[in-house]
Amino acid sequence: MKLYGYWRSSAAYRVRIALNLKQLSAEQISVHLVKNGGEQHSQAYDRLNPQHLVPTLLDEGQEDELNLSQSLAIIEYLEEKYPQEALLPSNIEHRAIVRSMAQAIACEIHPLDNLRVLQYLVNDMGVSEADKMRWYHHWIIVGFTALEAQLSQYSGRYCFGDTPTLADICLVPQVYNAKRFNVPLDDFPNIVRIDQTCNQLAPFVDAAPERQHDAS
Amino acid sequence: MKLYGYWRSSAAYRVRIALNLKQLSAEQISVHLVKNGGEQHSQAYDRLNPQHLVPTLLDEGQEDELNLSQSLAIIEYLEEKYPQEALLPSNIEHRAIVRSMAQAIACEIHPLDNLRVLQYLVNDMGVSEADKMRWYHHWIIVGFTALEAQLSQYSGRYCFGDTPTLADICLVPQVYNAKRFNVPLDDFPNIVRIDQTCNQLAPFVDAAPERQHDAS
Repeated sequence: MKLYGYWRSSAAYRVRIALNLKQLSAEQISVHLVKNGGEQHSQAYDRLNPQHLVPTLLDEGQEDELNLSQSLAIIEYLEEKYPQEALLPSNIEHRAIVRSMAQAIACEIHPLDNLRVLQYLVNDMGVSEADKMRWYHHWIIVGFTALEAQLSQYSGRYCFGDTPTLADICLVPQVYNAKRFNVPLDDFPNIVRIDQTCNQLAPFVDAAPERQHDAS
Repeated sequence: MKLYGYWRSSAAYRVRIALNLKQLSAEQISVHLVKNGGEQHSQAYDRLNPQHLVPTLLDEGQEDELNLSQSLAIIEYLEEKYPQEALLPSNIEHRAIVRSMAQAIACEIHPLDNLRVLQYLVNDMGVSEADKMRWYHHWIIVGFTALEAQLSQYSGRYCFGDTPTLADICLVPQVYNAKRFNVPLDDFPNIVRIDQTCNQLAPFVDAAPERQHDAS
């Protein structure tokens, strides 16, 4: 398998954690999201992923080579293909709750604070840098407020019970972003606690942005 | 089951289509997203869904009542609980591609054009109505351009092959929004064709916003 990613991409970070938790390896190929106007917009990458987003997973072990975009689709693929070290509970209702928490981040927070959105706000909408940061903080705080309520109901040591799941895989990169841009986290004790717990595990530590070969 | 939704919510529209395709029924409860500052922000709804978003599915048939937010998590739950009339292919690689297309809409287009985001742009960022519409069109065109490329590779009669899937369930509400706000669709022949094909099926027709009891 080959994973096209970028050290600071939250979505690539999620897939790295999932691979590590499942003890799977993939060749890591860096797509620099900033240099030269963004390598994700190059012709070569467009052929691979017309969304011009990372990550892309290539699974060349398939009869027909599989080319997959979207981090949650990639992780669900890994889960179905390599069920060991499950990232979702076995109970149908519990799986649903874990997916709901993961999507509360992946569909409600991250898409709004993604690099291309921030670039569009500043370059095309004429929004100031200060307003861009206000926007960034706003969607994390709105999203974390709702997630904290879910966690107070369902969390154990991790987001759902006492085993890391897809929800933790989404949470840790989002907290990384929040800290990077100084979003105050005092109102989110479960989020802070679970992030700290996850970051004691090697699969999370090894997936961290600063640990990647393309970090600068 | 009870589905808290709103006639014009794309995410609720997706769940209605899924329920119809599976021939499942749920009591439809309207949460008016605009009236009185938005009923989704009421104390009563906050207890049900702290995200203040629709839809919410309540499955009271469970031993512990299941309260579920996030449309894709709800649809995956319905798929696992009621496998008849499958919304995902059986092949693992094919399932992954369908999820990837669904998320190309649900994680990359819709979150940016959601009501609360448009409201924040205008009310809190001081963006003009004209710039709001430019923003709205932009993310649909960017997203549809990438999706059209995926469809040219994978579509048959529907987004993936000749059976409606989760990808079609996400596509039709997004096309509805595009048409509502006059986004030009000439460059997206597969998207237009598949939308028309889906809208000849009763499960899609019956789920349409104008057919709902709270439509006004």
